[in-house]
Amino acid sequence: MNERALIRAIQRYTATTRRDDNLIAGIGDDCAILRPRRGEDLLFTTDFVIEDVHFRRAQESGVETGYRALARGLSDIAAMGGEPRYALISLALSPWACENYVRDLYRGFAKLTERFHVQIIGGDVTRTEKLTIDVVVIGGVPRGKALRRNGAREGDRIYVSGPLGGAAAGGYKQRPEPRIELGRQLRAKATACMDLSDGLALDLHRLCVESGVAAALSSPIPTARRASLAQALSGGEDYELLCTIPPRRQPPAGLIAIGVITAGKPGALTLDGQPLDPKGWDPI
Amino acid sequence: MNERALIRAIQRYTATTRRDDNLIAGIGDDCAILRPRRGEDLLFTTDFVIEDVHFRRAQESGVETGYRALARGLSDIAAMGGEPRYALISLALSPWACENYVRDLYRGFAKLTERFHVQIIGGDVTRTEKLTIDVVVIGGVPRGKALRRNGAREGDRIYVSGPLGGAAAGGYKQRPEPRIELGRQLRAKATACMDLSDGLALDLHRLCVESGVAAALSSPIPTARRASLAQALSGGEDYELLCTIPPRRQPPAGLIAIGVITAGKPGALTLDGQPLDPKGWDPI
Repeated sequence: MNERALIRAIQRYTATTRRDDNLIAGIGDDCAILRPRRGEDLLFTTDFVIEDVHFRRAQESGVETGYRALARGLSDIAAMGGEPRYALISLALSPWACENYVRDLYRGFAKLTERFHVQIIGGDVTRTEKLTIDVVVIGGVPRGKALRRNGAREGDRIYVSGPLGGAAAGGYKQRPEPRIELGRQLRAKATACMDLSDGLALDLHRLCVESGVAAALSSPIPTARRASLAQALSGGEDYELLCTIPPRRQPPAGLIAIGVITAGKPGALTLDGQPLDPKGWDPI
Repeated sequence: MNERALIRAIQRYTATTRRDDNLIAGIGDDCAILRPRRGEDLLFTTDFVIEDVHFRRAQESGVETGYRALARGLSDIAAMGGEPRYALISLALSPWACENYVRDLYRGFAKLTERFHVQIIGGDVTRTEKLTIDVVVIGGVPRGKALRRNGAREGDRIYVSGPLGGAAAGGYKQRPEPRIELGRQLRAKATACMDLSDGLALDLHRLCVESGVAAALSSPIPTARRASLAQALSGGEDYELLCTIPPRRQPPAGLIAIGVITAGKPGALTLDGQPLDPKGWDPI
């Protein structure tokens, strides 16, 4: 497979009949060209997915790897209250990655691009030793309405969008569900929001540091079937949303209350009054 | 260096005092947030730079690798007639990449970000075996004015922005110069434009395929000092601009005429009447 043949194949895999007046040029030129919508801010997130770091070839199909790679980016868009629109997907292929494997990756991407109306508009292709995918997702959000990490205030209630620890308990094999619709509902409600990629303890710590506040969690922490409390707190890769909402506002359906934002040393956490270590998944 | 310490260091390396009302949030949240300028289309390009594929650690400093990684993306923006604005830079660090090396990479990026007023607004950090950089550059161009590859027409003159083959002749060690200002001047002049990353023969072939035309080149092909004609035609990585301009329009200063667009089999090339093979650098 030479570069041109591969790009042709990718153009086939990513072809769409959807009309999009805001996409002026997709794959095939030096750059993709977008015409921004009026009244919107744009969101950008980028994630690496690398063989033997984020997945093992023997344990995961190309479809799963593709799905999970794109799901991470969509989850970041959900965490900002945004709507995903476009993706740039770059592939550095290892010697073992044949054309069928590449097709399977794009099948995995397609499971999400079709559901969430995301178009793949560009990328780069090259080779390396360990298969490497870099996914950039571009989203839109009404002007000024993006949910940040730094707005949590004393007294805000802390919520998560589902039980935690399931990814760790299941050996990180599940397909995470990007919480796009919930993120959209949180735009007018939440003071801070992020997605849980590295575990509740570490991610809540980060949200509190950015907001200059502390947090007091209370049992029970919602725990996925077969997951331990340690997995729920520090297992990572659950991709549920973590958010803070002032007590006077009604939380959207489906959120689970887990505690309250407090004054105190920025980033300090407690669980049932005991100090909680901000331990989680740290990829470096 | 854990993830948080690395991100802190990167925030220091990329800190700027430049005011930018269009950048709502940079590094540190789930996504970067941009507010598009009125009347502009946005351009997106992404490039991998990988150890032992695009550079060798023993032969290139971190500063050089950083410079060259970002220069490729800026060159793509120049090829569309755009102005570079922002970059997302993702790093997968190899075991040998220490904090000093990362600082050197950012020094290399800074040589271009400072000259061209580009701000690094996000990225991802992880680890892998071979150092891997993915650079996304976001540019702006007046609405509808982006230069494409598909507009060349019979009779248009073919130009390049400088002598070719210098990168190959010099062992691919030079610092390419992104032709941002020239790209801007070409907006109202060129019918098609691209940057020469893979060599004149292959890249002109691609431009002709996209435009549905053929091309007749004439000697002398401008050749860099110490470069052979073969290197000028197929050496790649010169990052000069290749463009087509109708004969009635005055080309901007500095362009060198090399031939004319003809009717004929799309993508067919000749040099002084003899068929020319579209051979070049193909990374797959």
